[in-house]
Amino acid sequence: MTAYDTSNIFAKILRGELPCYKVYEDGHVLAFLDIMPRTPGHTLVIPKAPARNILDIKPDDYAHVARGAHKIATAAMKAFGADGITVQQFNEPAGGQVVFHLHMHVMPRHDGVAMLPPASRKEDAKVLEEHAAKLIAALKAG
Amino acid sequence: MTAYDTSNIFAKILRGELPCYKVYEDGHVLAFLDIMPRTPGHTLVIPKAPARNILDIKPDDYAHVARGAHKIATAAMKAFGADGITVQQFNEPAGGQVVFHLHMHVMPRHDGVAMLPPASRKEDAKVLEEHAAKLIAALKAG
Repeated sequence: MTAYDTSNIFAKILRGELPCYKVYEDGHVLAFLDIMPRTPGHTLVIPKAPARNILDIKPDDYAHVARGAHKIATAAMKAFGADGITVQQFNEPAGGQVVFHLHMHVMPRHDGVAMLPPASRKEDAKVLEEHAAKLIAALKAG
Repeated sequence: MTAYDTSNIFAKILRGELPCYKVYEDGHVLAFLDIMPRTPGHTLVIPKAPARNILDIKPDDYAHVARGAHKIATAAMKAFGADGITVQQFNEPAGGQVVFHLHMHVMPRHDGVAMLPPASRKEDAKVLEEHAAKLIAALKAG
């Protein structure tokens, strides 16, 4: 497997070199909105530890990412009045991975509404700001 | 959300009332082959604790499932000569869920080969036995 590349965009977000619509952070993970959401509220949970994907991440760090996704999922149901949640995590190009810092997709779903294809439309900044605010409020409400 | 239904097929597998192609088990999770694999080696990791999905599972149990998926992913790369891994976890019908005991899909992928649609073809028992044996051997080899 290719080694971890510190110039990937999520590494830059972690270092504060690129902005993000942050919704959650703890000692192990960062969660922020996908700017090309496949569903409204589409959130990415990433480990702070450098890891390309499931094939080089430490089990503890993968578990931390899952805990983050669990937290986001519950809050996203409330924040977006969702009917369900789709979680996806892609590894290597053959597995669907495009950005090579491990990330878990948490996508709020509504009955009868299909997901957009990956990276099909960049969302408006105003909408992303509103969605981040809603999700942060739901996370705070517990 | 609908309450956990103890008559779902994965609960029956956990109670030993239905067979499965088991590949891994520990105190917290069971992993077995999907009998309608979307890719060769498609494995499901489920918690032993009763949980409908991400919305009612305890964070610790979700983390255990993720650890199980991590273990399977690494072994599946070797067992099936895979180029990548796709992980999916569906919650509620809107999120793509069909069996209502939480499960995480771990699907070995090969470059240029699409996944089959969900539940499109029941795999031959002989093939599933061979795939389980390969994956168990890779898990034992570490």
